[in-house]
Amino acid sequence: MFSSEIKVRVRYSETDRMGYVYYGNYATYFEVARVEALRELGITYKEMEDDGMLLPVYHYDVKFHKPCYYDDELTIRTTIPSMPEARIVFHYEVFNQKNELVNTASTTLVFIDRKTNKPCQAPDFVTGKLKKYF
Amino acid sequence: MFSSEIKVRVRYSETDRMGYVYYGNYATYFEVARVEALRELGITYKEMEDDGMLLPVYHYDVKFHKPCYYDDELTIRTTIPSMPEARIVFHYEVFNQKNELVNTASTTLVFIDRKTNKPCQAPDFVTGKLKKYF
Amino acid sequence: MFSSEIKVRVRYSETDRMGYVYYGNYATYFEVARVEALRELGITYKEMEDDGMLLPVYHYDVKFHKPCYYDDELTIRTTIPSMPEARIVFHYEVFNQKNELVNTASTTLVFIDRKTNKPCQAPDFVTGKLKKYF
Amino acid sequence: MFSSEIKVRVRYSETDRMGYVYYGNYATYFEVARVEALRELGITYKEMEDDGMLLPVYHYDVKFHKPCYYDDELTIRTTIPSMPEARIVFHYEVFNQKNELVNTASTTLVFIDRKTNKPCQAPDFVTGKLKKYF
Repeated sequence: MFSSEIKVRVRYSETDRMGYVYYGNYATYFEVARVEALRELGITYKEMEDDGMLLPVYHYDVKFHKPCYYDDELTIRTTIPSMPEARIVFHYEVFNQKNELVNTASTTLVFIDRKTNKPCQAPDFVTGKLKKYF
Repeated sequence: MFSSEIKVRVRYSETDRMGYVYYGNYATYFEVARVEALRELGITYKEMEDDGMLLPVYHYDVKFHKPCYYDDELTIRTTIPSMPEARIVFHYEVFNQKNELVNTASTTLVFIDRKTNKPCQAPDFVTGKLKKYF
Repeated sequence: MFSSEIKVRVRYSETDRMGYVYYGNYATYFEVARVEALRELGITYKEMEDDGMLLPVYHYDVKFHKPCYYDDELTIRTTIPSMPEARIVFHYEVFNQKNELVNTASTTLVFIDRKTNKPCQAPDFVTGKLKKYF
Repeated sequence: MFSSEIKVRVRYSETDRMGYVYYGNYATYFEVARVEALRELGITYKEMEDDGMLLPVYHYDVKFHKPCYYDDELTIRTTIPSMPEARIVFHYEVFNQKNELVNTASTTLVFIDRKTNKPCQAPDFVTGKLKKYF
């Protein structure tokens, strides 16, 4: 298991008229969280994509336990629970500044070879970086 | 069961560098879809909210079967599968212009009384409009 | 001069905690408005881009006279005030459902040849469609 | 004159199919930049708004000199060029990681008293913090 944490400050643009963070905007926080988790492992998502490996989201599931508000400083803990094969799973827990668990989510992404536009196995430089955590 | 359909044209702003609709933007399409489904039933979400009934999303789950692209004209079929009680569930199926099922999703929203900030039962004017479909 | 009108319904995701349409979201409305203006002329922006002609925004200027709100049905009048050369200018006027002018904007876009990544003149199929209006 | 700098990492969600940061998304960067500039002065925008002072954008003007890309780490320099009266002006310069000036912008915001919903003068706690810079 590999875990990593980032902090994200809620932007005004991300709120809605209810005063909450709009439910659709958490997807962006999770994208940032998993990219930073990979960066911590030594994997730059941008380079991976430039090298021809796409990683689109196949499944996204999120539960909103409590609302988040403008200017909240959220902590997002990202976990890779298992060795990626053709897919990679990320779990997320979001905490507000009172350390309350405000939401939980998971995303499943698939490795796609841009040349063939077909699913493929996780590349060696990804599994290599992750091996020691499992 | 109540079903309704809308069409949504993919905006440039909704695409990402992969050329796909960014996975986080479907949440907005589903929001538009359920609001229009309610409008078809004679329920204006805005009025409901102005009258003190909030309807935040508690759970959102989405599977991306195929990518959508800029300028695609998507058809979103929204279904309310059961009579709302303290929660209301919406199912969504998204089809592209080739009539391929591109993704499926569901959202569970909770009725919140703005005065008490507490969950409550679906108001009568909502259940009244829906009764004949179940 | 060429003019065209579209209607846009304000989405929940586009509002902010002030209850207004977030100021950054008008850029998307104007993108939709100019794409539909071109479509009315017989020009599909997507095809133009797929054919290797990019049209990034160089200058964007907007004045917010009155706020817009959730569920407002806005009318956007788009005008191409002059024949495009290396640049194309669009003016926009946004009216709410009370027919009040809520904001005015303009964008200047440049024609970029994707192969050379250099600015170029408006292609003939664009100027051809526009000729009769000037 | 008061100046302040922040860094913003470009998110995947903020790119478009051209591979650039979508032109509409800079508005969010500028919002973050001015809020952090105010925070550096000891002014929390959120508190100001909670205290009944709204600060909607009246005018926004931006020039895009060069595109920005996914994962770029941008530096935004925010300047308050003059003492706010009924309006407050912010200038922005955005630099990419090669220290190239990629765009320049300005926003004019108006002070609105939420109680009366009328424009008003900049409150004393804002002008007080800024006095020494002019």
